[in-house]
Amino acid sequence: MRIKKAVITAAARGERLYPVADTIQKAMLPVVDVDGLHKPVIQIIAEEAFASGIEELCIVCAPGDGVRYESAFTSLRDNLVKSFKGVDWARKEAEKVDQLLSRIQFLEQEQPLGYGHAVYCAREFVRDEPFLLLLGDYLYVSNLAQQRCAAQLLELASQENCAVSAVNPTIEHQIGRYGTLTGKHLPGKSGVYKIEKIIEKPSLSVAELELQTPGLRAGYYLCFFGMHVLTPAVFDILQKEVDRDGDNILLTPALQELADTEKYLALEVKGNRYDISRKHGLLSAQIALGLAGEAHEETLTTMVELLAEANMRSGK
Amino acid sequence: MRIKKAVITAAARGERLYPVADTIQKAMLPVVDVDGLHKPVIQIIAEEAFASGIEELCIVCAPGDGVRYESAFTSLRDNLVKSFKGVDWARKEAEKVDQLLSRIQFLEQEQPLGYGHAVYCAREFVRDEPFLLLLGDYLYVSNLAQQRCAAQLLELASQENCAVSAVNPTIEHQIGRYGTLTGKHLPGKSGVYKIEKIIEKPSLSVAELELQTPGLRAGYYLCFFGMHVLTPAVFDILQKEVDRDGDNILLTPALQELADTEKYLALEVKGNRYDISRKHGLLSAQIALGLAGEAHEETLTTMVELLAEANMRSGK
Repeated sequence: MRIKKAVITAAARGERLYPVADTIQKAMLPVVDVDGLHKPVIQIIAEEAFASGIEELCIVCAPGDGVRYESAFTSLRDNLVKSFKGVDWARKEAEKVDQLLSRIQFLEQEQPLGYGHAVYCAREFVRDEPFLLLLGDYLYVSNLAQQRCAAQLLELASQENCAVSAVNPTIEHQIGRYGTLTGKHLPGKSGVYKIEKIIEKPSLSVAELELQTPGLRAGYYLCFFGMHVLTPAVFDILQKEVDRDGDNILLTPALQELADTEKYLALEVKGNRYDISRKHGLLSAQIALGLAGEAHEETLTTMVELLAEANMRSGK
Repeated sequence: MRIKKAVITAAARGERLYPVADTIQKAMLPVVDVDGLHKPVIQIIAEEAFASGIEELCIVCAPGDGVRYESAFTSLRDNLVKSFKGVDWARKEAEKVDQLLSRIQFLEQEQPLGYGHAVYCAREFVRDEPFLLLLGDYLYVSNLAQQRCAAQLLELASQENCAVSAVNPTIEHQIGRYGTLTGKHLPGKSGVYKIEKIIEKPSLSVAELELQTPGLRAGYYLCFFGMHVLTPAVFDILQKEVDRDGDNILLTPALQELADTEKYLALEVKGNRYDISRKHGLLSAQIALGLAGEAHEETLTTMVELLAEANMRSGK
């Protein structure tokens, strides 16, 4: 199967550790990407999708945010054009922003009814095709120079013709933050599992009983990485929850039902993701992008200089 | 003399390496401060002033930006109140933002007539008192646990009853970016100079001829750090330039005239400043604040983990 559509959920508002900015401001925070250019976080996520073969993208956002995103991107484009007249990279970058806008649509989640509901909002955009699902506050950095995280996932989904979630072996004291799962190792495929059981933010005792996966290092569990290829069957499952009028519709139980009814794999993705909503999350993401990209040497030098300065400071 | 007023210039628009954000967005970028809290850049700069004994502050901004700053701070305050109901640090932080707003006024520079003109715009606010001048796109990190950079400057200005500029010994290949000066070492005071000559962004050959300062390491010059205590006499000097209808009124020639007419010192400040308008400037500032503050250990750990991940990446 070929996956042409992606959905980014960016509707969460004012939650977590990050009081400074609202959702749009957060999504538009400038980060230096692996190519050395300053870009808004949401643009880097969108480029992850487009660079992996996605053709159309929809961002699920809070009511009223669609026009705000569009005007934020428009003023970014204007800034590039005005401030860097005749500068080659700025002209190209402005064109990229225009292209981006032409391939993105914004869908508004009218009420904050949970992450599953945010995904459900994209059903008309997705229709009857498989789709890539990304989180609006994660930045993904691949360990492979030639293949982004999303591309790794899309490749397996196309080969196996089924839903695939990216997972990360995660140390036990952190699994309470993630959807955690177990499954059978797929013979002949390294780091690929047929998903059997998924539990959202399990306690350690539940995980020990129900979520151990043979072959992982002791004390490690498979946790969601925040990136999925899903089939449109997930919308039918979510529809039942929506019909039940739930006010916090989760994605994880729907994914469990998906695993029960069709072939659904997990892939240990070669890369890392950085949750920019967490404290120091943006810093970590920025350092990781710096180290992964063209500015590798420069980032290392910066870090070493800063460590030297800090050392001087604490020596006084 | 006692210095109660500070001026922050934040009127530059769309210049330099930073196309993503306009001036306000740049000033409101969230950074984790030494106390571990996310704050906008401009708040951290304002707190530098208030923590050093300043009572009233004025931000010189572009036309129309005054209300935008106020609404950005108001929505930050509301975010804190709404998102962290009953959480102690958030309540305190919201009060701090309110206090901040009550002690800050915004003055608009109607036309972009240069940095000297931006300072000149604050004359009615400053009146006949000495004042602290800071840059809106610099973050300052002191090497002294108990004394901020601004406090070091204010202390000397009070003791010596005169204007003082913070300076940094700077390696020769970087002096073309800064106001560079030379003067006579003040006997009995380490790192204090009576300013004699200042040249804006000098060439290396001019610097070699005119700006060498005995006692500095070979190849080093005294460059402005971006922080001054000035006397109101500077406004009379700038007035003459304004009357001449210049369209790019610089501060440096005015400071040269100040040095010619009254006692004016330079202080090697114990600390570093990070220009957040430069590429990786915000990253450097964030790492430096992290290493200087409560999150020292956490920041170090983050850096080491990221280096390990990057190493893994390049090993593949």
